Amino acid sequence: MTALDDNSVQPSVTTGPITGSEKVYREITDPDSGSVLRVPQRRVGLSDGTHIDLYDTSGPYTDPAATIDVHAGLPALRGEWIARRSGEGHPQHAPSSGAITQLACAKAGIITPEMRFVAAREGMEPEFVRDEVAIGRAVIPVNRCHPESEPMIIGKNFLVKVNANIGNSAVTSSVPEEVEKMVWASRWGADTIMDLSTGSRIHETREWILRNSPVPLGTVPIYQALEKVNGDPAKLSWEIYRDTVIEQAEQGVDYMTVHAGVLLRYVPLTARRVTGIVSRGGSIMAAWCLAHHTESFLYTHFEELCEILRAYDITFSLGDGLRPGSIADANDEAQFAELRTLGELTHIARAHDVQVMIEGPGHVPMHKIAENVRLEEELCGEAPFYTLGPLATDIAPGYDHITSAIGAAQIAWHGTAMLCYVTPKEHLGLPNRDDVKTGVITYKLAAHSADLAKGHPRAQEWDDTLSQARFDFRWNDQFHLALDPDTARAYHDETLPAEPAKTA
Amino acid sequence: MTALDDNSVQPSVTTGPITGSEKVYREITDPDSGSVLRVPQRRVGLSDGTHIDLYDTSGPYTDPAATIDVHAGLPALRGEWIARRSGEGHPQHAPSSGAITQLACAKAGIITPEMRFVAAREGMEPEFVRDEVAIGRAVIPVNRCHPESEPMIIGKNFLVKVNANIGNSAVTSSVPEEVEKMVWASRWGADTIMDLSTGSRIHETREWILRNSPVPLGTVPIYQALEKVNGDPAKLSWEIYRDTVIEQAEQGVDYMTVHAGVLLRYVPLTARRVTGIVSRGGSIMAAWCLAHHTESFLYTHFEELCEILRAYDITFSLGDGLRPGSIADANDEAQFAELRTLGELTHIARAHDVQVMIEGPGHVPMHKIAENVRLEEELCGEAPFYTLGPLATDIAPGYDHITSAIGAAQIAWHGTAMLCYVTPKEHLGLPNRDDVKTGVITYKLAAHSADLAKGHPRAQEWDDTLSQARFDFRWNDQFHLALDPDTARAYHDETLPAEPAKTA
Repeated sequence: MTALDDNSVQPSVTTGPITGSEKVYREITDPDSGSVLRVPQRRVGLSDGTHIDLYDTSGPYTDPAATIDVHAGLPALRGEWIARRSGEGHPQHAPSSGAITQLACAKAGIITPEMRFVAAREGMEPEFVRDEVAIGRAVIPVNRCHPESEPMIIGKNFLVKVNANIGNSAVTSSVPEEVEKMVWASRWGADTIMDLSTGSRIHETREWILRNSPVPLGTVPIYQALEKVNGDPAKLSWEIYRDTVIEQAEQGVDYMTVHAGVLLRYVPLTARRVTGIVSRGGSIMAAWCLAHHTESFLYTHFEELCEILRAYDITFSLGDGLRPGSIADANDEAQFAELRTLGELTHIARAHDVQVMIEGPGHVPMHKIAENVRLEEELCGEAPFYTLGPLATDIAPGYDHITSAIGAAQIAWHGTAMLCYVTPKEHLGLPNRDDVKTGVITYKLAAHSADLAKGHPRAQEWDDTLSQARFDFRWNDQFHLALDPDTARAYHDETLPAEPAKTA
Repeated sequence: MTALDDNSVQPSVTTGPITGSEKVYREITDPDSGSVLRVPQRRVGLSDGTHIDLYDTSGPYTDPAATIDVHAGLPALRGEWIARRSGEGHPQHAPSSGAITQLACAKAGIITPEMRFVAAREGMEPEFVRDEVAIGRAVIPVNRCHPESEPMIIGKNFLVKVNANIGNSAVTSSVPEEVEKMVWASRWGADTIMDLSTGSRIHETREWILRNSPVPLGTVPIYQALEKVNGDPAKLSWEIYRDTVIEQAEQGVDYMTVHAGVLLRYVPLTARRVTGIVSRGGSIMAAWCLAHHTESFLYTHFEELCEILRAYDITFSLGDGLRPGSIADANDEAQFAELRTLGELTHIARAHDVQVMIEGPGHVPMHKIAENVRLEEELCGEAPFYTLGPLATDIAPGYDHITSAIGAAQIAWHGTAMLCYVTPKEHLGLPNRDDVKTGVITYKLAAHSADLAKGHPRAQEWDDTLSQARFDFRWNDQFHLALDPDTARAYHDETLPAEPAKTA
């Protein structure tokens, strides 16, 4: 029995189109296999009979023609592609000999169906996608054991992506709530989801999320490993960690945060910080290093880890365990020492044909933001940068989705490829469903602001279409083109609820 | 009988300290007059017995020792200073001969009590304040007929300021609501208020606001002038406009938006825009120019206008009537043509000893923001720039406080001196009291992010104090140091309501 056979768990997920949009698919034929790739889009029909097609992350949930059965999970969109590539009968499991990752294919000049799919999604040429993956400037996080996901790409020359964190804790939330948060977050535009669950039922929660997730899933395996040793970092070991990684890899986790850059000698660099070490993974590894006075097992076993990730085509998200937790600590020696080590590890992973992203801060005042991107690109061979905000000030708890959107838009303009969202509850409590939506919408608008500033082809078309509708007082068109049509309409109706006011 | 004698109007305003803060006054003796200047501060006491003093805009309303009587209005804090300067018996009215503006004093090497007051508020030297005012890089908007206001300064070398727009319309809101919005907005940090009322009772509403406002008040006189001609721009004239300006000047309006840069020949430049002319004042003046095929009376009578403003020491806020209304129209020829004319007018106003700010956009993608500041400084002799946002994208109606905070933080970092807030209802409806608070807090955090990035002395101290409290899990200290203590606490309590969780 798998977790999804448990009928005591009854997730209720949000389905149906986004107001004023319909789901359409652009069909692309893969010349190698003859397969037809169906690339989803959100089509907004306008009152003048024209339409605009927007990037769509919401999966089958917004398609009225799709049958949604959370106990069955989503169809294995990529099953056939994976089987063909691995040449084996069990595509959902790692091949015993060798592995063909997206990076390996790209280096070999092979354009995978995943690359064609993301090229169509982004409006780019497949060969350009292949080239960006080959040089490591972009990643396509696709565990072969998560065939349900719709391929997407993370890289500075593509649309800026947004990740939403979800996950239950020891005190709150349940499996159904987390499944709905995943569906809900991707409905509003989350490009990936990270499951940061702690407490009980970690494995089952993740299984539910993975089998139903149309977007790549990321995790921080050290969190679950710590649960296995009852929360005592000193009791962690490479073996426990490795087994946890394999367990999660088999389930289909697409990218994993690994804090392998927290070296023993860096820990003292944090002693005089205002906010010490604020990364949970960073704190765990620092505690382990200090307890054993030994170099981090994540660092010393890094090549073995590469081999495991390669077998599943999991992408590294090299964690910034020493990221600043406050404006005061931004861009300090601890942060940049770790970044240098992440650069070293990036090149090792790539030599193993494993894709790599680099995680970044956190809390950075505006004048120190550009330096973060410059150094990351220089030290980490332009591996996609994946930052948490950063917050541009610390004085506004309750509004940290906004303080961080200010930093996020800027860092993305400078080249960050994916932004990890921050909700209004950051630093204060756990986000509920409304907070998740607010966080996702806030980050989508920050990401899109960066797409505009970077001159991404077609980004401005969306703005211009909405601006024109606004100028013409075509209210319904304006609502339907909005990132959040429901809120736009509701705010309008508070003042002028009459229907004629929306078409006049 | 004045408007405040009308007992059918019963505004109920918010009073009492901000949670966790107390009102204190720093006392400064003015060496010229021997007067004691009482400079307000928001003191946040911490659990370790220390405290931090923050800039305070909230006026007597947060002082439990103050008697608040909205029918009497606030005390005339500046009455004596004005009387001494004018050497006349009726300080609240313009002197018949000549005028002594802040700019005239600054040029003459005189440090006014207002300059000493703002120097103490900002933690700067009085001589530095005088010098910045003298060269026109900063303004102190203080109509001699608004003696109730606490002096403040707007300039790139001082803390970035925030303006909140309020005002009733033909369809909604009342005098009491607008008075409370003024008190409420300044409570949360609005440095100035603009009363954009239209419809009926414009004069009375403004009187109520002025007599009770501790912050400078700005208006757009053309709005009231238009009401006087029943909304038909073609019927406007210099005489009607002039009389409206004098009416508002006598009431005490501290700065006035004047769209004197919308010249007849610029109007055709907007023809091929996506969103034409979106400034209300700009549209009115463009309509007048086209109807009469004559140059704008604001431009042709500009020197007469300077003489009126000089008599009251009113500051010009030269309006950007041709500002872009969409990403598509940012930084176009219409916008910059008008800016060149505003530069020309700036120098004329300064020659009349009248202080000048320049209004700016609006809607600008991030990569075009810096150019706005550079050109404004070059063309307008570094007159303080006062921008509306700008929104960094147009795709998120309902979230335009955030899309614009992204642009606002950046443009302020580059040198904008005051930010006009945007509320969540922008483009959709009229802001209610909650929207006003959200808009103000959002803009305060954007302004503070810029203060940090510009390295304003003492800006980072606030962040560091909060960060340290956060790292120590001193929850109450963290709440009390927040821009919005009530929301921070409420969010925390949703997850962990127990009292021990806040001090543990």
